Amino acid sequence: MFNRVAIIGVGLIGGSIARAMKKHNLCDHIVGYTRRVNEAKKAVALGVVDSYESSVAEAVDGADLVIIAVPMGAFESMFRQMAGSITDKTVITDVGSAKSSVINAANKVFETLPPGLVPAHPIAGTEKSGVEASFDSLFENRCTIVTPTDFSTEEAVEAVTQLWQAIGAEVVCMTPEHHDHVLAATSHLPHVLAFSLVDTLSHMQEHSEIFRFAAGGFRDFTRIASSDPTMWRDICLNNKNAILSVLKQYEEQLRKLESAIADADGVEIEKIFSNAKSARDTHVS
Amino acid sequence: MFNRVAIIGVGLIGGSIARAMKKHNLCDHIVGYTRRVNEAKKAVALGVVDSYESSVAEAVDGADLVIIAVPMGAFESMFRQMAGSITDKTVITDVGSAKSSVINAANKVFETLPPGLVPAHPIAGTEKSGVEASFDSLFENRCTIVTPTDFSTEEAVEAVTQLWQAIGAEVVCMTPEHHDHVLAATSHLPHVLAFSLVDTLSHMQEHSEIFRFAAGGFRDFTRIASSDPTMWRDICLNNKNAILSVLKQYEEQLRKLESAIADADGVEIEKIFSNAKSARDTHVS
Repeated sequence: MFNRVAIIGVGLIGGSIARAMKKHNLCDHIVGYTRRVNEAKKAVALGVVDSYESSVAEAVDGADLVIIAVPMGAFESMFRQMAGSITDKTVITDVGSAKSSVINAANKVFETLPPGLVPAHPIAGTEKSGVEASFDSLFENRCTIVTPTDFSTEEAVEAVTQLWQAIGAEVVCMTPEHHDHVLAATSHLPHVLAFSLVDTLSHMQEHSEIFRFAAGGFRDFTRIASSDPTMWRDICLNNKNAILSVLKQYEEQLRKLESAIADADGVEIEKIFSNAKSARDTHVS
Repeated sequence: MFNRVAIIGVGLIGGSIARAMKKHNLCDHIVGYTRRVNEAKKAVALGVVDSYESSVAEAVDGADLVIIAVPMGAFESMFRQMAGSITDKTVITDVGSAKSSVINAANKVFETLPPGLVPAHPIAGTEKSGVEASFDSLFENRCTIVTPTDFSTEEAVEAVTQLWQAIGAEVVCMTPEHHDHVLAATSHLPHVLAFSLVDTLSHMQEHSEIFRFAAGGFRDFTRIASSDPTMWRDICLNNKNAILSVLKQYEEQLRKLESAIADADGVEIEKIFSNAKSARDTHVS
């Protein structure tokens, strides 16, 4: 499917893509680039990538597919470093959790967006990070949202779609803006709420005792608060408007529920809870 | 350990206590009472209880241990119905998720609190309900908080403690007020937040699409929003003040995070996320 693939950022996601591409024989050679050379060496030693380069430009040089899997905050710098090494034929995709900001970052570097650039976002991951946590089935039966730009060629969109399908993902196409709204609601908002809850409890005087009585529901509910703080900081900075918009809607609904509790309005409380249960039972398996 | 045990409310929790007591041979006979006779018959057919009575008074009559496992809203009525059938020797305990309100309900019925009354709360459960969902190991390696009243005898506290230990729970003793604060923080607040999140999303125009892209983290985070709405309404009504107090603290912290996102203050966002991650990683296994 591809000859030389450059993976920029070989962590949980980049490493899992590399492993999955190898498993499905989708390319001849995978070259990795990671800011810390030690991590790149580890990725080679683990057999996740075939070789590494110590600069983005060298890694991308001659690649027919470039996959950017670095934190959102580093995208502009990555585009700048690869700008001289890509051609109109190079297919470039990424795995960033916000898509408008990827396009904004590219717009700062390129006069017109590269025709091979097709941003994407696999809805998969764990609360772990690093290449050691990567595995080849991470994307199987998961959704990948592909968000072509106004300049993406049909061939590039097709290549990126086929790549994700080949490693087991279901591909859905939408605009970057729509992606950002949907993900703000289903992923970014829950993370913000979970981080904030654990933060709140940790400031209570008797916090060790409080956490001691946390039962199963609490463990599940707060699992996402163990996610990488830097990555989630970057997501908040890069999908700021969509997150603030859903957060405002959430706060409004929460205040309604709070009033119902303060008024001891059992009918209203039960209405909200029943509606939530029924929505979850209907839509979430 | 006991001769005749009356379980008032044979659902997930009441049924699981009955199963666990049988497994560990802790009593001679378990009689069940459930408002709906069909449910009581089912509990007998499943072998969860040995017999059933169609009134609380009859079920409690002659029992040396009474366990109340009905929704919080029904406690006052249960106390009233059993008032004529208990003696000073009857050990009475319950599994309600809020403890001050149990004592308030008892105070409305009894001139002085029964010396055998020792409220308790097993920190265990699933999002399922009903006697069919009950199982005998539900309390193993879980915490049960025992909250004696000012009138509880030492013997009664000892009997309730030993009961819970015998079915595998670790027992911790605290005041009802302290219990209500701790549980508001670790259990009631997360449920309120999860219900409210799913409720918010369900009101968005494109909600079926939004739920479609909900990944693993969202499933875990919102699992508790599948809990029984009536039970959680009752908990909100019965632990109102403690819940409103932690909810206010939460909203304040959430507004701080919201401001940091609006200001694109990456340092502050990361500080909050890192603090949450570190608290969770330290305290929650």
